[in-house]
Amino acid sequence: MDLKQYITIVEDWPKPGIRFKDITSLMDNGTAYKYATDKIVEYAKTVNAEVIVGPEARGFIIGCPVAYALELGFAPVRKEGKLPREVITAEYGLEYGTDVLTMHKDAIKPGQRVLITDDLLATGGTIGATINLVEQLGGIVVGCAFLIELTYLDGRKNLGGYDVTTLMQY
Amino acid sequence: MDLKQYITIVEDWPKPGIRFKDITSLMDNGTAYKYATDKIVEYAKTVNAEVIVGPEARGFIIGCPVAYALELGFAPVRKEGKLPREVITAEYGLEYGTDVLTMHKDAIKPGQRVLITDDLLATGGTIGATINLVEQLGGIVVGCAFLIELTYLDGRKNLGGYDVTTLMQY
Repeated sequence: MDLKQYITIVEDWPKPGIRFKDITSLMDNGTAYKYATDKIVEYAKTVNAEVIVGPEARGFIIGCPVAYALELGFAPVRKEGKLPREVITAEYGLEYGTDVLTMHKDAIKPGQRVLITDDLLATGGTIGATINLVEQLGGIVVGCAFLIELTYLDGRKNLGGYDVTTLMQY
Repeated sequence: MDLKQYITIVEDWPKPGIRFKDITSLMDNGTAYKYATDKIVEYAKTVNAEVIVGPEARGFIIGCPVAYALELGFAPVRKEGKLPREVITAEYGLEYGTDVLTMHKDAIKPGQRVLITDDLLATGGTIGATINLVEQLGGIVVGCAFLIELTYLDGRKNLGGYDVTTLMQY
């Protein structure tokens, strides 16, 4: 299945010059959404993932069905102030300034094999912070899976040393 | 399975006097997360849902695996400014002021049978706005499914006329 036919390219969003890759048109098609999820499920099996982790909100869209399919737990990574119990934090750089991601302190057990999921790999900033969180808790990042990779942003290089799989490249 | 044993009650969060029902401990357990999801999948079958809709971010956690299991599309409801294409909007009341939810104009086809999912039914404000969005697009809300219902907040009464199912009641 050519998944790219289900991606909508939105010109000049969120700002002029950006050609945004919109995955909602893929998710809106049950067959395409299941096909894409199953590809990541297959990958999760090859790396023997024991728990799935994803940053809000689009990381949930990919990771939650993968967790369900494999009967694994899903541990959410959220913006500051969203998780109700004791958290650990990781900063990551934005175009201007920094932002903070958090994870519950008991979300991962030391030694657990973790698959990180998100919709899109750009520069890898969010995923770098997510890896940081998982490793603070003693988890082993066995893979990072994305629907889309923007190859010209070198995110894969920035995640050097981690196994990365992506279903579509632009 | 007694799902309540997987819910963590967090005292005084997000503010004093609130006993927050934290679902992340349920999601962290692959067996419990799958069991809960399958209950909603069964419900989705009984109401012949054709598409799943959920508000960010916790509505994704419930609805996306349900969509996957049934090979249906998932249409996200998001806060203003998050969806890249043309949207419709619905306001809903907060304790102070109002907030706005949005949905892509082409997310639902007229006449489609829609199941709305979220983690928790409180007063029903978010879900009321979500129903409004679905109906603006000509969708038929055939059911609303939640993990948790706070019965003392009368959300079910506020959603009168719609079919509501919940897996745990407090």
